[in-house]
Amino acid sequence: MLEDRQVKVGVLGATGTVGQRFITLLSVHPYFVIHALGASQRSAGKSYPNAVNWKQTVPIPASVRDITVQECRPEFFSECSVVFSGLDSEVAGDIEATFRAAELVVFSNSKNFRRDPMVPLIVPLVNPSHLAMIPQQRALHSPPLKKGFIVTNANCSTTGVVIPLAALEKSFGPIESCMITTMQAISGAGYPGVPSLDIFDNVVPYISGEEEKIEWETLKILGEVVDDEGTKSFDMHSRHPLRISASCNRVPVIEGHTECVSVRFHRRPPPSPQQVREALTAYTSAAVALGCPSAPHQTIYVHEEPDRPQPRLDRDFQKGAGVSVGRVRQCRVLDIKFVVLSNNVCIGAATSSIINAEVAIARRVIEV
Amino acid sequence: MLEDRQVKVGVLGATGTVGQRFITLLSVHPYFVIHALGASQRSAGKSYPNAVNWKQTVPIPASVRDITVQECRPEFFSECSVVFSGLDSEVAGDIEATFRAAELVVFSNSKNFRRDPMVPLIVPLVNPSHLAMIPQQRALHSPPLKKGFIVTNANCSTTGVVIPLAALEKSFGPIESCMITTMQAISGAGYPGVPSLDIFDNVVPYISGEEEKIEWETLKILGEVVDDEGTKSFDMHSRHPLRISASCNRVPVIEGHTECVSVRFHRRPPPSPQQVREALTAYTSAAVALGCPSAPHQTIYVHEEPDRPQPRLDRDFQKGAGVSVGRVRQCRVLDIKFVVLSNNVCIGAATSSIINAEVAIARRVIEV
Amino acid sequence: MLEDRQVKVGVLGATGTVGQRFITLLSVHPYFVIHALGASQRSAGKSYPNAVNWKQTVPIPASVRDITVQECRPEFFSECSVVFSGLDSEVAGDIEATFRAAELVVFSNSKNFRRDPMVPLIVPLVNPSHLAMIPQQRALHSPPLKKGFIVTNANCSTTGVVIPLAALEKSFGPIESCMITTMQAISGAGYPGVPSLDIFDNVVPYISGEEEKIEWETLKILGEVVDDEGTKSFDMHSRHPLRISASCNRVPVIEGHTECVSVRFHRRPPPSPQQVREALTAYTSAAVALGCPSAPHQTIYVHEEPDRPQPRLDRDFQKGAGVSVGRVRQCRVLDIKFVVLSNNVCIGAATSSIINAEVAIARRVIEV
Amino acid sequence: MLEDRQVKVGVLGATGTVGQRFITLLSVHPYFVIHALGASQRSAGKSYPNAVNWKQTVPIPASVRDITVQECRPEFFSECSVVFSGLDSEVAGDIEATFRAAELVVFSNSKNFRRDPMVPLIVPLVNPSHLAMIPQQRALHSPPLKKGFIVTNANCSTTGVVIPLAALEKSFGPIESCMITTMQAISGAGYPGVPSLDIFDNVVPYISGEEEKIEWETLKILGEVVDDEGTKSFDMHSRHPLRISASCNRVPVIEGHTECVSVRFHRRPPPSPQQVREALTAYTSAAVALGCPSAPHQTIYVHEEPDRPQPRLDRDFQKGAGVSVGRVRQCRVLDIKFVVLSNNVCIGAATSSIINAEVAIARRVIEV
Repeated sequence: MLEDRQVKVGVLGATGTVGQRFITLLSVHPYFVIHALGASQRSAGKSYPNAVNWKQTVPIPASVRDITVQECRPEFFSECSVVFSGLDSEVAGDIEATFRAAELVVFSNSKNFRRDPMVPLIVPLVNPSHLAMIPQQRALHSPPLKKGFIVTNANCSTTGVVIPLAALEKSFGPIESCMITTMQAISGAGYPGVPSLDIFDNVVPYISGEEEKIEWETLKILGEVVDDEGTKSFDMHSRHPLRISASCNRVPVIEGHTECVSVRFHRRPPPSPQQVREALTAYTSAAVALGCPSAPHQTIYVHEEPDRPQPRLDRDFQKGAGVSVGRVRQCRVLDIKFVVLSNNVCIGAATSSIINAEVAIARRVIEV
Repeated sequence: MLEDRQVKVGVLGATGTVGQRFITLLSVHPYFVIHALGASQRSAGKSYPNAVNWKQTVPIPASVRDITVQECRPEFFSECSVVFSGLDSEVAGDIEATFRAAELVVFSNSKNFRRDPMVPLIVPLVNPSHLAMIPQQRALHSPPLKKGFIVTNANCSTTGVVIPLAALEKSFGPIESCMITTMQAISGAGYPGVPSLDIFDNVVPYISGEEEKIEWETLKILGEVVDDEGTKSFDMHSRHPLRISASCNRVPVIEGHTECVSVRFHRRPPPSPQQVREALTAYTSAAVALGCPSAPHQTIYVHEEPDRPQPRLDRDFQKGAGVSVGRVRQCRVLDIKFVVLSNNVCIGAATSSIINAEVAIARRVIEV
Repeated sequence: MLEDRQVKVGVLGATGTVGQRFITLLSVHPYFVIHALGASQRSAGKSYPNAVNWKQTVPIPASVRDITVQECRPEFFSECSVVFSGLDSEVAGDIEATFRAAELVVFSNSKNFRRDPMVPLIVPLVNPSHLAMIPQQRALHSPPLKKGFIVTNANCSTTGVVIPLAALEKSFGPIESCMITTMQAISGAGYPGVPSLDIFDNVVPYISGEEEKIEWETLKILGEVVDDEGTKSFDMHSRHPLRISASCNRVPVIEGHTECVSVRFHRRPPPSPQQVREALTAYTSAAVALGCPSAPHQTIYVHEEPDRPQPRLDRDFQKGAGVSVGRVRQCRVLDIKFVVLSNNVCIGAATSSIINAEVAIARRVIEV
Repeated sequence: MLEDRQVKVGVLGATGTVGQRFITLLSVHPYFVIHALGASQRSAGKSYPNAVNWKQTVPIPASVRDITVQECRPEFFSECSVVFSGLDSEVAGDIEATFRAAELVVFSNSKNFRRDPMVPLIVPLVNPSHLAMIPQQRALHSPPLKKGFIVTNANCSTTGVVIPLAALEKSFGPIESCMITTMQAISGAGYPGVPSLDIFDNVVPYISGEEEKIEWETLKILGEVVDDEGTKSFDMHSRHPLRISASCNRVPVIEGHTECVSVRFHRRPPPSPQQVREALTAYTSAAVALGCPSAPHQTIYVHEEPDRPQPRLDRDFQKGAGVSVGRVRQCRVLDIKFVVLSNNVCIGAATSSIINAEVAIARRVIEV
């Protein structure tokens, strides 16, 4: 049993918003044990409580109170079977590459490697099969690696929408078009993030780079790993071209991204709203089948009430690891429209990285 | 000059949210003079300050402090050339019909008569031409009327989106499809309206009846009044079928509805984003040409900044009478997408009724 | 062991805000088992999920999903050892009196009996000793009761402040004067409660009756039960007159009342801030000593950080059952000032009733 | 008539929050004309619209659209009769001193010189008489100055409370003790200021240095300029020692500081609540008597409604230049308590500087 052993892990960017969430989740994990914490030079050498401006609603876990924060250098993490990265994108690229080159395994929440043709971009409830790229990622590294690799998870707003889209494609075949309008929480911008004067009593109809992320990442995640005479690549859903149009908004909500989604299927006639509800409810992830402890038992909860999901009421469902869908109904322009609610700081960030690592362990991509 | 005379007006539902806004606007109007205020039996007989729970950010205007609130019966309003109605829909139907039957002219913000085939549904910056239905409305009344009629204005979320759509159709011909996702302010629900526990730190992805209103009202407003052997009717945009799909959300904003809109034109190729920007900026309303004092000089302001319009910064532009558009760009699914911001309590409610009355006076549909 | 048995309980006002919280807490209680739910005639006969507009962030507990809601009549609760009341004050008086007369034990969160000279007003972390009044409450009832009685808990804003005041009096003797300015959460007003238009981007410096409650209830709670030749009464802190001045404000916070408190002690010189911090930290409640499972192990947590406690970060500490204090410092007008944060829907409401019942069971005031 | 001439003014810190407000107010001023704008080296050389991240709810005034921003050096402001400073305190000290030494007149909103024994700290509706210190400020400068001087206005939370305190002392003589609990708006912290994650759904019971400012500044403002054998000094209210205790909180409000105040008078018996209301209402400022165009005609508005003043409803009263008081009632610990609402970005900041300059011109302290 995995639960019987302890897997030492490290956290990069440990004092930041995502890092704090990693620590909160890992401190109660059945087999991951926090062994090392990395942050900037400014924090290095301090005990974690002295280094961090802790902003979680639970106290700093006892298990990290005595850990001394290190600089983000591989030698301090050599005993870690897994390194989780919540680094800012300004520094994540170099540090994560250095860790991989040092034969460390990195599960990153940063955007830097998401578009890398060798790096899987995995939403654990959707495409853990993309771990199949890892041998090639190692082999093509110079020098070739035996253990080290990088896996990233998706942008928070991509994650929310791609899970129900995957469920729909699984049941009803390819989606042709998808319109997405997001209403995203302020915690998605990190800390200090959005100034209060900008978002109180307001909507900001723009988040830099966000629409492009949704439109691009969704194709990589919903696409497949194809093999052309022994060379693997991500097909970007190219066998069934999928047009995605996203409009991203920041709203005065602390946690939980709400997204209004409308889709058009390739298949005619399209499924009915009731068929869609049933398909979403029935969708299960490989992560659950593999017994991953952080995976939600119900991947997608479909609300029947007309006014749900709502971020304040539904973001903590299944500890924020599943997604909630509601208002499944016909669309007069495309086929079917619905509302998705996902917890941007859980399944939209740290929780995804952790389940990804759990899957990789269960599938023996990592030996522990 | 109209400004030289005084036109006596009444306000129905004078103690409610919309009524308070009517009073605030009319108290500084160049020629309308508040003559009578109507409310429920509970308020009747009290001075206005004693009857109202005033919630505006300006004090109660001096001109109404001494007016005694009446019941909503025509005899108390017989001297009024125009009666503005901010009544709740539960009572608006009967009262407004009674006023019309008594040869009074009613400009209503209520929904009751919007779907009536004889009643114009007018957004003053779009379709004042629909006043052409009034002679027939009077003639078909039993008994036929000489002066009385009812004109309604649109639902607040419809108003915001129909103004740029009208501008686009004027420049580029028929729109075929339109996807709209709204983020609506709490003031749209009146008072007490939305409980704070429901909307703080939250999004409610549902507003009862709202999506149907947008999808239906837009067709009536953008359609034409057609004449079949002397009988007029509203054509509901039927010569160029227009499919509209709306998703309505309540967000924690006090005032100002934000709407993400995407359209597909009939014409191929569609206009470019730059052509769309220019067409929106150039659009002018008949209400301005007629010199209506409450009409905005600039109907649509197009922002170049990437993160505008925003409700808190832009809702008071032109006293809330115009609309702001931003983020005009290509859509990967339809043709063009953009963001609209309109002030739901001004052009989305009382201001529309007032400009409608100004147009009717300028066009001598009402003799004053 | 109490945990080995099950104590059947009922909840009155089960569909309301406080009732929902009672059910949420009782559904995970080690020995209380929900046996009956009471609500208004309108809800009676429906299953609980059909009767309630559930507003909690956790789903409706499985254990009550199949319970049929009853009217609030004693015959439906005859098997309940304890009845918790979250009734509105408009109906609580009659119903609770009827239940007591039927030999039922009522722990009420309503205000109706708080000023009754026979009814204990108990904050469980302060004055469970006031249960001593119960034999007299029963005896003076007409006819005398064998089992039935009523115990109330305090208003939410009183509860927050009276716990540290009790700790201070325990260590340093009588307090002479106390100034309190509250910043209270919207959930304190129930549902629908405060209209969003009234409190968004706003402070309302008035809560009807609230200041009087703090000023009066604190005296009853901090006072003693005195015995004059066999007749017991509440002395209202009269041996050491205590002047309290409260200013109550509603602020845009969902949960958690923040209170700025300043006190003057009788004793000269007064204690130092450091002595006050130590006394607050050391304070323990009889409820913990009695092993009450819902009592917080740490009654008062004293923050050293300059900017704590804060409602969003600290309201869930110890499941909302303790209070947090910070900024203990000297006051230039009185002696010592500090900030208190308490969870108004937990220790300020349902949690207090539940701990009160736990104490009564532990002390065998109730036989179960 | 002053209105007939134009007085050239400059604004330092023109791109910041306070600077933007100065520009908004000065652009509609009857005789001040913006002549020069100063900001950091990064902005210098750009046109104002290109240099600023404009955050006001009105567009950038036409009159400054073509002004090129300069560095904050005296030579660029030599034609300005008055220079308003909204500089950050990190740089305000050196720059303002340099401007004074260059014989420029500086009205500063920064804190740097507030405690300087030669610099008047003036709330224009309270103590413009402190301008009497200016000849000595000039004379003791090395070398002595002919024109240059610095006047500061008070911290925003001080301003709100000191106006009613001044009114009370004027009518009833010295105040002995004053307890103040503030609930301050986020705009008081400038931009970007308070991170939204820190203040959404929250209260922060601490603002660095704020309590000390209220406790100290109030004494300087309410005190007098005394003359000891030709040497003037500020007496800090020392003839009647005044003990002030402030507790400062940040609340989720955009604009408008609410303060709960309780006072004890020296005089016995103290005035009644009704006498206090009348004294506050009757209070007028010298600024009005001198015809200063930005001074509010009603200095203090006293609300009779039990739930006023409220920031959202009352902060714009008199364009934010007056203060609103409500809930005047007896205090069980001191004598009288009440609530004050003041607009922190108007009378609490830029408006005060502007009225101070208007007074100085009216009194010919500045020759224009």
